[in-house]
Amino acid sequence: MFKITYKDKHTNARVGLLETPHGVIETPEFMPVGTQAAVKALSNEEVKYCGAQIILGNTYHLYLRPGMDVIKNAGGLHRFMSWDGPILTDSGGFQIFSLATLMKVKKEGVKFQSHVDGSNHFLTPEDVVKLQHELGSDIMMVLDECLKYPCPKDKAEQSLKLTNDWARRSKREFDLSCSCRPGLNLAYSSGKRSLLFGIVQGSTYPDLRKKSAEELVNIGFDGYAIGGLSVGEPKDLMYEMLENSVKYLPEDKPRYSMGIGMPHDFFNAIEMGVDMFDCVVPTRNARNGAAYTSEGRIIIRNGKYSKDLRPLSESCDCIVCKNYSRSYIRHLFNTEEILGLRLTSLHNVYFYVNLLKRIRGAIKEGRFIELKQEFKDKVF
Amino acid sequence: MFKITYKDKHTNARVGLLETPHGVIETPEFMPVGTQAAVKALSNEEVKYCGAQIILGNTYHLYLRPGMDVIKNAGGLHRFMSWDGPILTDSGGFQIFSLATLMKVKKEGVKFQSHVDGSNHFLTPEDVVKLQHELGSDIMMVLDECLKYPCPKDKAEQSLKLTNDWARRSKREFDLSCSCRPGLNLAYSSGKRSLLFGIVQGSTYPDLRKKSAEELVNIGFDGYAIGGLSVGEPKDLMYEMLENSVKYLPEDKPRYSMGIGMPHDFFNAIEMGVDMFDCVVPTRNARNGAAYTSEGRIIIRNGKYSKDLRPLSESCDCIVCKNYSRSYIRHLFNTEEILGLRLTSLHNVYFYVNLLKRIRGAIKEGRFIELKQEFKDKVF
Repeated sequence: MFKITYKDKHTNARVGLLETPHGVIETPEFMPVGTQAAVKALSNEEVKYCGAQIILGNTYHLYLRPGMDVIKNAGGLHRFMSWDGPILTDSGGFQIFSLATLMKVKKEGVKFQSHVDGSNHFLTPEDVVKLQHELGSDIMMVLDECLKYPCPKDKAEQSLKLTNDWARRSKREFDLSCSCRPGLNLAYSSGKRSLLFGIVQGSTYPDLRKKSAEELVNIGFDGYAIGGLSVGEPKDLMYEMLENSVKYLPEDKPRYSMGIGMPHDFFNAIEMGVDMFDCVVPTRNARNGAAYTSEGRIIIRNGKYSKDLRPLSESCDCIVCKNYSRSYIRHLFNTEEILGLRLTSLHNVYFYVNLLKRIRGAIKEGRFIELKQEFKDKVF
Repeated sequence: MFKITYKDKHTNARVGLLETPHGVIETPEFMPVGTQAAVKALSNEEVKYCGAQIILGNTYHLYLRPGMDVIKNAGGLHRFMSWDGPILTDSGGFQIFSLATLMKVKKEGVKFQSHVDGSNHFLTPEDVVKLQHELGSDIMMVLDECLKYPCPKDKAEQSLKLTNDWARRSKREFDLSCSCRPGLNLAYSSGKRSLLFGIVQGSTYPDLRKKSAEELVNIGFDGYAIGGLSVGEPKDLMYEMLENSVKYLPEDKPRYSMGIGMPHDFFNAIEMGVDMFDCVVPTRNARNGAAYTSEGRIIIRNGKYSKDLRPLSESCDCIVCKNYSRSYIRHLFNTEEILGLRLTSLHNVYFYVNLLKRIRGAIKEGRFIELKQEFKDKVF
């Protein structure tokens, strides 16, 4: 299901092909975030135009709204949202532990109140696998407990025990449903099964990261995510933990660092051997008027752009940069025209997806370090 | 500049070709409103996709933001906003008298405070023509005084005197600038001059409407707008005044009813011989979740659409109706995803522009009354 096609000679960077029921993804790749079945401010045609090979959905959000009956009624998430490429669904662990009002974490599962309407819910790791089957997810994530930073070691250790127990149960449920209830997941209609990823936790403790990774590898997943990072810890510590997770993961499986996604992070993480990324930064910052360019980040409301007839990024060939000037986009932000944030969102996702494409190209041509150097002094 | 190509045998409906510096428009036509140099929530590519032949800009708004220096710096409004088709600019009279804090209406012009930052401004009818030249407008509107409904007759009479005096001065300024300062208007670069439209006022008094129209015709404009309607008066009175304006206007010039634009209005006004329309209804209502369909208006948040897999309008072939269901769009509105209002906006503008296209087709084929009957019982 995952085949490495190029390896960088000087680093752990690699290019790979990951097969999913809805198509093959070339890695390393950035996955635009479509939490509520839409990449914020963009249409699916635009996301496709940007070159995105895969998008994210969020099980917690979709389970609450529109609810599983609405999505099942449409024939799964792909048809519901009109996206025919691969979809990775986050389990919603992170959202249950950050957005919802947490009621109780038990061995069996987690009790919480919806952040939308305060309704009570109880979900087990098995439930979350089933929900992702019902969504028709191509790549599913196990339910995990997400810790805040900082976290005392004994608490992190205890939590890891629970998370890995949940991972084991998720895998069991997944295997069971794959063999016994193939009709459950719409992705099966093509004769290919979905993928299930485990999530490395362990807070900021190298030995716990190691333990987490090794136990997950023992269970055996289609891929491994590194979770619990970019939650407030210093950048150095984030990279240290990322490295202390990746090095215990098998080379022949895809690695996904969750929620990490500033342009420099890509280079640093890919250098360690990470293959997949997601982050709300390009779309969230776009809505606040920040555009990513090959010269760095620009804040479009800045007065100095009022008569600047250049595109957002001079080296960009996206439709926004072809048709619209900084002067015009600044005006749209100043007058609160929705088109303003649409244009920066489209440009930023294009920039992100195409940065990863450039990185893949550089790895194939043995120029990865060179490209990394090129971006070194840029401020994002 | 205006050529009638088809006339309905049973009504005053007609199809015509109106030549402007940026292209020929086939009338009757609906003109999407791009007040602040953007049709709300849509990109120019989408407006073009909808089939719109011409869009509106607003002199008052653009004069305040981004300001004339920014637009002149871009080489005019067309280049600033990246729209290469015709643009009609409203003079801003309506906005000065509704949005701004009115300071004083004098014989020379109007003193007002910006609704954006409270700054003081004084504009004469001559200034407003000059501003529209600087924007590079294809079709300019004269500055007029806009009355509220109801308005006492003596006040309406007095106002009409001022408005027609302003119209006379606008025409003089326009003729002067066209002959002496051809470089002023970017539309001239193609060797074609812009058009100037007068605006019939007279509140709800038939004799004043007649007087207004006749005086404007005496001055001689490229086209005639009917203003001061749809400002709170009963629908019957609106139609009565529309009729009492149109019948005094020359047949060989285009007629534009300002701000009128519910689907039934098109049929009724076109029947009287009106050629051009603008209205914020399709985009404003779209942002509130109302979609126009050939079966009438639907409110997409309604619970009955939660599992409705049909497109917004079953007989519509727009990209929204091809790709997305009511169920999905309802979810987008419920979760406040920007894509929701984008999709209804795109669909509604497509619906409006294509309704006018159908009407033109019907007039050409002698089926205008038939098509009007088809829409008779639909609720919009």
